[in-house]
Amino acid sequence: MSPFTGSAARTSPWRHLRVDLDDGVATVTLARPDKLNALTFGAYADLRDLLAELSRERAVRALVLAGEGRGFCSGGDVDEIIGATLGMDTAELLDFNRMTGQVVRAVRECPFPVIAAVHGVAAGAGAVLALAADFRVADPSARFAFLFTRVGLSGGDMGAAYLLPRVVGLGHATRLLMLGEPVRAPEAERIGLISVLTDEGRADEAARDLARRLADGPALAHAQTKALLTAELDMPLSAAVELDAATQALLMNGADYAEFHAAFTEKRPPKWQGR
Amino acid sequence: MSPFTGSAARTSPWRHLRVDLDDGVATVTLARPDKLNALTFGAYADLRDLLAELSRERAVRALVLAGEGRGFCSGGDVDEIIGATLGMDTAELLDFNRMTGQVVRAVRECPFPVIAAVHGVAAGAGAVLALAADFRVADPSARFAFLFTRVGLSGGDMGAAYLLPRVVGLGHATRLLMLGEPVRAPEAERIGLISVLTDEGRADEAARDLARRLADGPALAHAQTKALLTAELDMPLSAAVELDAATQALLMNGADYAEFHAAFTEKRPPKWQGR
Amino acid sequence: MSPFTGSAARTSPWRHLRVDLDDGVATVTLARPDKLNALTFGAYADLRDLLAELSRERAVRALVLAGEGRGFCSGGDVDEIIGATLGMDTAELLDFNRMTGQVVRAVRECPFPVIAAVHGVAAGAGAVLALAADFRVADPSARFAFLFTRVGLSGGDMGAAYLLPRVVGLGHATRLLMLGEPVRAPEAERIGLISVLTDEGRADEAARDLARRLADGPALAHAQTKALLTAELDMPLSAAVELDAATQALLMNGADYAEFHAAFTEKRPPKWQGR
Repeated sequence: MSPFTGSAARTSPWRHLRVDLDDGVATVTLARPDKLNALTFGAYADLRDLLAELSRERAVRALVLAGEGRGFCSGGDVDEIIGATLGMDTAELLDFNRMTGQVVRAVRECPFPVIAAVHGVAAGAGAVLALAADFRVADPSARFAFLFTRVGLSGGDMGAAYLLPRVVGLGHATRLLMLGEPVRAPEAERIGLISVLTDEGRADEAARDLARRLADGPALAHAQTKALLTAELDMPLSAAVELDAATQALLMNGADYAEFHAAFTEKRPPKWQGR
Repeated sequence: MSPFTGSAARTSPWRHLRVDLDDGVATVTLARPDKLNALTFGAYADLRDLLAELSRERAVRALVLAGEGRGFCSGGDVDEIIGATLGMDTAELLDFNRMTGQVVRAVRECPFPVIAAVHGVAAGAGAVLALAADFRVADPSARFAFLFTRVGLSGGDMGAAYLLPRVVGLGHATRLLMLGEPVRAPEAERIGLISVLTDEGRADEAARDLARRLADGPALAHAQTKALLTAELDMPLSAAVELDAATQALLMNGADYAEFHAAFTEKRPPKWQGR
Repeated sequence: MSPFTGSAARTSPWRHLRVDLDDGVATVTLARPDKLNALTFGAYADLRDLLAELSRERAVRALVLAGEGRGFCSGGDVDEIIGATLGMDTAELLDFNRMTGQVVRAVRECPFPVIAAVHGVAAGAGAVLALAADFRVADPSARFAFLFTRVGLSGGDMGAAYLLPRVVGLGHATRLLMLGEPVRAPEAERIGLISVLTDEGRADEAARDLARRLADGPALAHAQTKALLTAELDMPLSAAVELDAATQALLMNGADYAEFHAAFTEKRPPKWQGR
């Protein structure tokens, strides 16, 4: 538990997500398999609040985001979200869309790597959640579809028009966001949208293994790598080089760097503390 | 016709381009086939003025840019442009180069998607015009060559040093702009420079079909997707997420979003209005 | 020799690098083959100072960075760097990390293209040096490994978290920097990390040939192409287009542009002056 803990209570239970914590690894499962894990207002709100809570508690060193059943996530629920937003006024519409964007910002800015475990469909908001993750571990059944224009909305939703060109390049990103066509696993791997392609049915297990490895390794180094990758997309080279220098100077005072050197000298594996 | 129309007259005819308008789809053809559609001062000026006129009239929802004859466009005409610029003073040289850059900005910033239909050579300024388009629909005869250093100029011409790294990555972009070597269709597809690869001789037709589909679909959603992709290359994540939220809140008040929901509920295809 | 030369003496000899100058081409060789060319404090300092000296003297039009022996560069020396930094205070740590970052900035900002000739291992700081180069000419034995997290440090070292996403995309960059796993030549070529793949054992020769070709060509055009590629990663489209216009107007007053036109008219190859 972080010393920087205030009065805020821990949330329990999370009603719209399944959340498991296991020695530094959080597994968050979208669990409405009968609806292909379509997102409700409650699920977005829980993702926003959960990531904030985990970020301040500092008990988590890696997080897996997975979907139960036949696919990862079919996106916003047509009935519960599209139907409801049609009755909203301007302020409510802005509130809703800011909330979904806050989830993506939280995925990019939380102090631990996020691994999306993708099988089957990752559509609409589900595709953007996967896109925002640090790793997309996917099996051959995975298919991504940025469906927003298909419902009359902008392909730039939840930061997709920012993130996708930086992952696959502007040409592919324009095609995927403008047309909303599905991208199957071979193409997704070829253009850099899949980080790790697994055997059929093994995405969840491979994502858990990767999360365990990251959590048990030099976790502060991993967290800082993520923070710099996120920040330096928005920085000029000169500032990025200065940020890197300050970060490395800081980590060279840390326990794990000294431990690496001791282990190397003693020809044994390092015992990482993540500090 | 937009209500925001002032005193400016419509241009007719366009003397340096062939322009066809068909129910929301503009087809702009570079039509000097005996010169491989080499660009003259007049052609650049017409592209600049045409895109401005189409942008304010709001009668166009998608645009195809094609080349007549054996190729797409061989770039600036050696006699009419290189020869003429050798006699220009500093102010004229700056005017010329600003004009060509304005064409590229207009392609990126006009409120409708632009589809380059590429067969044969797309060289020099022709390669940058194709690069600036939202889609490059190309057949196997297509080859791109950013020839600028071959004539003693900077590979960064008309925004190429900005755009190309964002489409194919900095490594490929450096190689292509520094060396000016031709990129044939298979490599262009592999590195993300071709959006859609067609059968031989079918690029124009496929580009027209795509333009028709975009124009007859939720065209305001397409236009906003393009606008966000263009703008968010130059924005930090936090601002991009806010822009996405405001845009979606706006479009959720639009006709097409409501029509999608009605059509979905009634199990029929949506009738898009592009509004 | 540039007219803008002050009192500073030329350095000779370079004690931590082998430096050869041959008619506008500099070849810088990391030459500690018994240590896989592991970098020492002196080698970093020499790279920083050499690039500054070559940049102000203007005698060099292209530079090859190569490694002697079994590989390109294994990165910072474990004994001489990791061991020594463990005894440093905060100010010294910051000085060291700023120095390494200055080397990368110098590679990106020097007024001539830099070609990394890579065979065997390019690890840690060696991988970032290659990444910062304009071209990575590599043979099939090349493997890149951004090992920083393996020693408990941030994957963002010397600008790597800025540069790598811009070369290979954010997805691949996250995987490579977070995990520190080796990338072998076929994958490196596929994701855009290798610029030119040569036959086995031919990387040095191919890099020299490319440097010669760049130095003997329109070298000012090459230098400006590099400068714009570097600068425009950090600029919005509107500013990039303006920078391109000013640069081309400038080069259209240069000797090489006139020479191209004369040679084209006279149907002979141009004699480039690099001015």
